[in-house]
Amino acid sequence: MNFCSQCGSARIETRIPEGDSLPRFVCAECATIHYQNPKVVVGCLPEWDGQVLLCRRAIEPRLGLWTLPAGFLENGETVTAGAARETLEEAGARVEVGDLYTLISLPQIHQVYMMFRARLLDTGFAAGPESLEVALFDEADIPWETLAFRTITRTLRNYFLDRKHGALPLRISSLERRPPLPPDLRGAG
Amino acid sequence: MNFCSQCGSARIETRIPEGDSLPRFVCAECATIHYQNPKVVVGCLPEWDGQVLLCRRAIEPRLGLWTLPAGFLENGETVTAGAARETLEEAGARVEVGDLYTLISLPQIHQVYMMFRARLLDTGFAAGPESLEVALFDEADIPWETLAFRTITRTLRNYFLDRKHGALPLRISSLERRPPLPPDLRGAG
Repeated sequence: MNFCSQCGSARIETRIPEGDSLPRFVCAECATIHYQNPKVVVGCLPEWDGQVLLCRRAIEPRLGLWTLPAGFLENGETVTAGAARETLEEAGARVEVGDLYTLISLPQIHQVYMMFRARLLDTGFAAGPESLEVALFDEADIPWETLAFRTITRTLRNYFLDRKHGALPLRISSLERRPPLPPDLRGAG
Repeated sequence: MNFCSQCGSARIETRIPEGDSLPRFVCAECATIHYQNPKVVVGCLPEWDGQVLLCRRAIEPRLGLWTLPAGFLENGETVTAGAARETLEEAGARVEVGDLYTLISLPQIHQVYMMFRARLLDTGFAAGPESLEVALFDEADIPWETLAFRTITRTLRNYFLDRKHGALPLRISSLERRPPLPPDLRGAG
């Protein structure tokens, strides 16, 4: 933040406002406090006859890698409506959104993932503009090595394990750090 | 938004960026797209020997009314850490955060509430600067008429009903509108 979006001043300070406990961007001219908060990513784990629907990304980041349909929750929509919208936009897939399955905090990048189980209503899906292809996968065929995000890998790993045990409770977790580099690369970057 | 926080220009347009589907604030000078997204409110339903802990608000909005401890999730924290922090700040109460109990979307005010069940670790709680008083309540004594927010009323109503049935599953819902005015006040402004 270089300028105050309220008054246009460049006198933006980083300080703890009175009565607050964390540093914020505060305009020294008009005193507006510019809060910044985590964003919610909503998505679906669409199920069809034991298979799950994945999309291959046509956009950065992680272009060319596979993911579950998901994206930022928009102002004015509910979490389940957002999950269904992202699934329609990215995978051309109509779903009935079900239970929340994973809730994953990513504090370092200021995101909270909410992945819902969803029942695919038909197989008339098709890649949207943000996807290269969309396909149903059996567990044995999941492209584990080319998944786009750790949240997606975790959601799918939990899912196939839990499914074997016959119960899919909400899984709350966090991904707090990047995985460590292998020893021979440490200090190289 | 009156000015671009990136370049300071006052030429802020509201338009749908290429490849997007919703109108955004876009700077006509430097082309920065200023996304706005819902905020997450995290809080606890602290339990102690069949009672629940409520706080009476010392700040606006809803000054003087009762609530469960809750507030905006901050950058850099997980949802459960945020719920515990708000409980400590507002009620001086130490808790072990448990299951997510209500997930309530408020699309009209761009918020998502996440209320967690929590085990109060001791009764050494005390009102923080944002609370006038903090107290444990039996179901029969809940101040239903002076609760601060509909999300809190819903969470507590669900909780006491579910508890009677012996199961507290995650309740996902939304509050999409203000409750209608009584007929004699409609159109009164």
